[in-house]
This record gives sequence, structure tokens and C-alpha cells, in this order.
Amino acid sequence: MPIQPRTPPGVLELLPPQQIAFQRMLDTIRRGFERFGFLPVETPAFEVADVLLTKTGGETEKQVYFVQSTGAIKEGKAPELALRFDLTVPLARYVAEHEHHLNFPFRRYQIQRVYRGERNQKGRYREFYQCDIDVIGKDTLPLAYDAELPAIIHGIFAELAFGAFTIRINNRKLLRGLLEAFGWDAEHHTAVLHEVDRLGKQTDDEVTALIAKVKPGQDAAAAQLVALMRGSDGGAGTLEALASHEHVARFAEGLAELRKVYEGTIALGVPAAQLKIDLSIARGLDYYTGTVYETFLDAYPRLGSICSGGRYENLAGHYTKSKLPGVGISIGATRLFSQLLEMNVIGAQAPSIAQALVLSVESALSATYAAIATELRAAGWNVEVYAGDDKLGKQLKYADRARVPIAILVGSREQEAGVVKLKDLREGAAVKELDVPRGELVAAVRRLLVS
Amino acid sequence: MPIQPRTPPGVLELLPPQQIAFQRMLDTIRRGFERFGFLPVETPAFEVADVLLTKTGGETEKQVYFVQSTGAIKEGKAPELALRFDLTVPLARYVAEHEHHLNFPFRRYQIQRVYRGERNQKGRYREFYQCDIDVIGKDTLPLAYDAELPAIIHGIFAELAFGAFTIRINNRKLLRGLLEAFGWDAEHHTAVLHEVDRLGKQTDDEVTALIAKVKPGQDAAAAQLVALMRGSDGGAGTLEALASHEHVARFAEGLAELRKVYEGTIALGVPAAQLKIDLSIARGLDYYTGTVYETFLDAYPRLGSICSGGRYENLAGHYTKSKLPGVGISIGATRLFSQLLEMNVIGAQAPSIAQALVLSVESALSATYAAIATELRAAGWNVEVYAGDDKLGKQLKYADRARVPIAILVGSREQEAGVVKLKDLREGAAVKELDVPRGELVAAVRRLLVS
Repeated sequence: MPIQPRTPPGVLELLPPQQIAFQRMLDTIRRGFERFGFLPVETPAFEVADVLLTKTGGETEKQVYFVQSTGAIKEGKAPELALRFDLTVPLARYVAEHEHHLNFPFRRYQIQRVYRGERNQKGRYREFYQCDIDVIGKDTLPLAYDAELPAIIHGIFAELAFGAFTIRINNRKLLRGLLEAFGWDAEHHTAVLHEVDRLGKQTDDEVTALIAKVKPGQDAAAAQLVALMRGSDGGAGTLEALASHEHVARFAEGLAELRKVYEGTIALGVPAAQLKIDLSIARGLDYYTGTVYETFLDAYPRLGSICSGGRYENLAGHYTKSKLPGVGISIGATRLFSQLLEMNVIGAQAPSIAQALVLSVESALSATYAAIATELRAAGWNVEVYAGDDKLGKQLKYADRARVPIAILVGSREQEAGVVKLKDLREGAAVKELDVPRGELVAAVRRLLVS
Repeated sequence: MPIQPRTPPGVLELLPPQQIAFQRMLDTIRRGFERFGFLPVETPAFEVADVLLTKTGGETEKQVYFVQSTGAIKEGKAPELALRFDLTVPLARYVAEHEHHLNFPFRRYQIQRVYRGERNQKGRYREFYQCDIDVIGKDTLPLAYDAELPAIIHGIFAELAFGAFTIRINNRKLLRGLLEAFGWDAEHHTAVLHEVDRLGKQTDDEVTALIAKVKPGQDAAAAQLVALMRGSDGGAGTLEALASHEHVARFAEGLAELRKVYEGTIALGVPAAQLKIDLSIARGLDYYTGTVYETFLDAYPRLGSICSGGRYENLAGHYTKSKLPGVGISIGATRLFSQLLEMNVIGAQAPSIAQALVLSVESALSATYAAIATELRAAGWNVEVYAGDDKLGKQLKYADRARVPIAILVGSREQEAGVVKLKDLREGAAVKELDVPRGELVAAVRRLLVS
């Protein structure tokens, strides 16, 4: 009996039409990163286990996949290797290990898969792509880099054309300073921000009441905080409203940073309508120390942030004594793609890799088919030749299923007349079929495909 | 104390300049595959262990890496997942699992990493890229596809420009038939081919003597076999010399196939000087059943075959009762790249991703720098902006180390004069520095970079 072929649970394996669409998405992301001069880095899928797991315990370690060869398992050894669960720890290891061979500020992008031993449930992936960019400074890193990342993200999502989107930015220093200015001590910040996170999901009054409960006597402050977060225009108006609190030191520093990042991003051509200051964005409390980003598709708020990141104080403290401040942002491509596919935002009907298929009308003419394909390939087109003596109907069905735009037919009639028959297989094609002189083939294909 | 950051042994982790060169190599391979209309497939890095390991025992299984989450290890469970050790088993699983959703002949390419628990020694990789293409038929697969693969490989290696190369082809039916015609029974074939493999490494006389020892009374046959293998021109002459043995049935079938594949490949534009029939090529004895391929860089014979493959009778017998004949070929990109890098065939000096770096001459002009970069990016160039107030010397040193071709400088003098200063940083640049009017920036950059 054959073994049941099956994909492991928790991975996204695609049929070719979807794989083509996904590949185009990754290509667009990569092009967007490279347009700003970021350098490619790839790290191995597995790391030495004790290097990867510098922190003990925690939610993440429970999800780590360990790697062991047959021999090591038999010897009962503890696993020496583990699959990376994100691209940040490998980046820290890479920068610390190769520090003296890197050019700082070090600007890298990394588009690779990461692995998590997630519970088996819909929408949870055990293997998924992350597309990360980070800029790492040595000792210091100018704030201008914080302004560059939203511009890169803007360029990418504009090109991906998944619909209107908004990049939301905030600053963690400003946020903490704001809470202090309003009368909450550091010990209350986590609780307040936890309630702030409900804004938009519950009514403003409900959230205000919850915030007021965190610390007695803060009713007015809670109302003021919610008003500031909800009432702002996310642009110049917000910056102006915040300026009235500039007497709090940490707050002032955060506000100055936020203003610079906001203005720097606008200077890079991001429309103000797509860049919003959002004081309610906090992100993970421990890691980020300054600018934070989230990105939302306007029509699909329930997807949550599709691209997030921020500024951190020190990338690789576990591995080196050098101080390496950085700023980074990440797109979770697998989850985003699968959700958009499910909602039919991304069509499952991408055209094929081949732009033309040369049919096998008569096997005696195979040298002609080879010559036609070679000529079109030299002109830059992707061309497939159908081999063998299947009936033309079967060949055309193949072309149709593959969604190849153009079929090319040459039988002995065409061969003698020195022409080539082009069939435009696309839905709604203006001209379904035309004969062109053999010498005008390349020009005719270009006319059909570039228009 | 910080943890020593270290890459696990047996992987190829590259610094950015080499990663750029490697990425370009993978891009060229992918473009070469797509030019012939092959479809992309990606499979997960791990497979369900009992699906992956259909064959028990064997050399390969010893090298398999198993994957387990922390929880499963604690519970003492047998590993359910294992990392793929090649792309062929995942292809078989993929085609069998998705058979009814695929369009046959199914032409796929796959460029992904595979994993082997190799002993830790130079040149042995535990993680490496394979770049595979296969055409899978349902029940039958025309021989024309066997002729297409060498044409694809030729296009790719011509573009990669690693120097002269030769694609060597043979046919396993012909080879077995030839041995039969010369008087060796099936039981002796493996031993004879084992000795044949020494041709080129030992003298012809030595190899003849070794072959003669396999079966008594075969002295003349051994000499005749070696003469046929060594004396042929690898083209029309070889086909002609072989024709005299056409009375052996299996031999005749193999010869007819080989002739068709040879002529079909030539018809696709592969020069006869780079396509050689080589009767001494056998490949793995069990898997391939017809055409076999190997590829050699003429100047580096000690690399061995850099791209190999062949025709097989049934891809997925372990997973399905459908008969799925196929033909495929594979490039081991990691090993090839690392060897060429070591021999300085590939330079470690690839230019950067960024084609231009806008320097930060005066921080008050940062909006101008942003505008310049945005304009050049819109014109299709990859542009980086140096942020912060480092001295110009330090910024130029950064540009030089990154191997960015052009630096762009605007200080208040240039700003007032409405010009932009371009510095060509490449070695041997004809013009080191020039001022161009702001409105002619894009044209000027194009003139410098496209010439």
C-alpha cells in the first residue's frame, strides 16, 4: 500500500497559480527594500541552541523546534541545534559575530522563513515568511533612519495594491512621558496601556472607566488621555495638542523625536493621509524604546497590523559589549498572503510564468517550434513548447488551465505560407486569432502583451 | 558575560558583498528556469517523518535531521517531523498529494535549501541550496522534454559566465544494452560501470585491465568498450560508431532516444561544442532509466559535475498508484558558489545594492537629500541616503567600503547654484567628479551608470 502523501499541519503550501502570486509579493517587497539600498542577508534555518536561546523560559522557548540527527537521538544527546523562531535573534547573532566586517550603519533586509511549534489551529503557522529590514548603528543611530522605514513600507504597499492603507506611528518615550504627565507612575503604565489597547473595540466611555480604575483619583486624567488619543487628527493637529505638555522631560524628548520622524517621513513623499500619529500604539513594552510603527489595511481592520516595528536601544547585548542601537520593521508575508487569498483580495487566477505556449501541431515541425521559442526567449519572453502528439484540443485545454496568454500554432499550411498563427487566450481578448508573417513574430507578440 | 555568537558548523553564511553575488546567481538560475515557462513550487522545510522516510535504512536516513518541539521532547515522543534532505522526495509527495489540481505535463522549478546531518568536514554542507527543475508526465512523457533540460542549463551557465562548460549526456538503456552486446550480463553491469568511472583519472590501459577482470574471457570486449568510450567525438561520430551495434534491442531503443535528445537539444540552439555524448556517464544506477546528464566547467574538472540529472520511470510510487514518469536536473548552488568563491572565479567585490549614496553635507538640507533620493528611486535606481552629521571623509569611506558607484553631494554652495555634485567612486572612472544642473540629475546618473 502506498503511504498517504500529506503536508505537515501548520504550513502554507501553495498550488502553482498561488505560488506565482506569492512569489510576486515577495519580489515586490524585496524590490522595495533594495530601492532604498538595503543589503541582503541570509542566515541558516537552524542556530546553535544555546546561542539562539539566550533567555530562559518564556512563551517563545516553549515553541522552539529542536533539530537532531538520527545518530544524536540514538545517543540520547540534548539537541545542539534549534530552528530560528524570528529573524531578530539571528540578526543580533550575525551582527555580533561579523561586527568587524560590517559597514555601519548596517542596513540589511532578510526574507526567510521562521519556525514555531504552535498549537495546530487555523491561522497559526509553524513555518512562515518574515520580511525584515533593520538599520543598526554603532553606539548611535540618527533619527533620520526612523523616518526612512515608513517610506519604504509605503512604497511597497502602494505597489502591492491591496487597497488603501495607513501607517500609524508613535513614540514610546512620549507615551510613557504622557502617562507620567497625567499622573500615572511607571508601575501603572502597563495596566493603563493594556486598557488603552481596547480603544476602537469598546466605546470611549467604557475604556475611560477602565483606565480610571487603574489608579484611584485619575478620573479626569483618564478622560483627558482618551480625548487626546481619540480626538487627534494624527498629524499637525496632534503634534500641536501634545506641545502643551512639553514641560515633562521624557515627554518632550519623545515629542521632539516623533515630530522629526513624522516630518522626515512626509519629506520622503509619504502622503499625510496615509501617515498617522496614533498615541494608542504601544507595541511590546520591553523591547522598543522610541519610535513604534503599525500598518493597517483600511478596508480590513480585523487583520490587525500587517507590518510593525520600532526603535530599540541595543540589538545584541547577549552577544557583544558593543552598543548597537537599531530600528526595524517586519512584514509577516505568509499570514498576510493567506488572509488576503481567503478574502479574495488576491486572485487565485494569476497568469502563468509562460507568456506564450508553442503548440505541437505536427511532430515533423518540432525544429520550427524550437526555433520560434528560442527567438521569443531571446526577446525576453517566457515561452513553453508543448511536446508530443496530443490532440490540439487537449493542448489548448492545457494552455487554458495554465492561464498562458498566447498560444502559437504552426501547421504545414502556415509553414508553407511563412506565417505563424497567434491565439489570444485571455478572457475578453479583442482579437482572438491572427496570422502574422514569421519575420514579424516578436513584434506581434510584444503588441499583444504590452498594451 | 555575553554568549559567544557563532554560526553552526556546516552552513554557508555570507557577508553582504558575497550574499549579493550569491543572490544574483540564484536570480539568474530562476530567470533561466522561468524563460522556459517552468512554474515555481515551494514546500515546507520539514515533512511528516514517515512520509519523508519511505525507504528504511540506507545512507540518506542516517543523515536525516529530525525536528521536535520542547514539549514533545519532554514527553519522550518519537519525532514526527524531519527536515527534507533533497527536493525530489518533497516533489514526489507534492505531485501525489495535489495530483488532481495539477496540469500535466507538470513543469516545476524549486529553489530551496535542504538539510543533511553530514559529518563536520570542509566542503560538506548541512544546509545547502538545490535548484531543481523537473517535468512530470501522467502515464507518458515525450522525449522532447529530455532535450529541453540541457538547453535550459546551457542558457543559465552561459549567463552566469563562469567560463567554458560542457554538458555531457548519455542514456542508461543504451549503456546497459552496450554492455549486453559486448557480452556482460546484468549481474556484472554495476562492477563494469564502477571501473568505467575511473576513465580520465587512471590510464585507459589500467581501466581496460580492471574491466577485463570483472568477467573472464572479456579482454577484447573490455578493450573495445574503452575504445568506444574514449575514442568518440561526442557528437555525430559517436552516434555513427554506435549504430553498428543496433541489433541489440535494448541498445537500439537507447540509441534512438539518445539521438533524439541530442538532435533536439542542438535544435534548441545549444552549440555542438558544448554538448557531448559521453558513454562513460552512468549516474546512480537504480534511479535513472533513460537520459542522464552531467555538466562540467572546462577549466575546473576537479569540481566534478556541477549540474546533473536524468530521466526516471516513476516519480511517486511510494505515494500513489498513478504512473508519473519524469525528467529532471539539479544545480547544487551552495557548493558551486563556495568553490568558485574560493578559487576567485567569483569576485568578492560585487557592487552594492545601492547605485547611489546621497551624502549628508549639511543637516539643514535633509529635505533636499530626501527629494533627490525619491526622484532617483522613481527613475528606477536604488538609492541610499546617509543620515546624521558624520564628517564627509567618514561618509565617503562608508560609500567606498560598500562599493556604491556614485556619491551625490549638495552643500549650500551647490544648493544656491542649483546644481548637484556627482562623484564617480569606481576604480578607473574617466570623470571623478562633475556638477550637473539639478534638473538633469536623473539623466546624468543614467549616463554614468548605463554605458
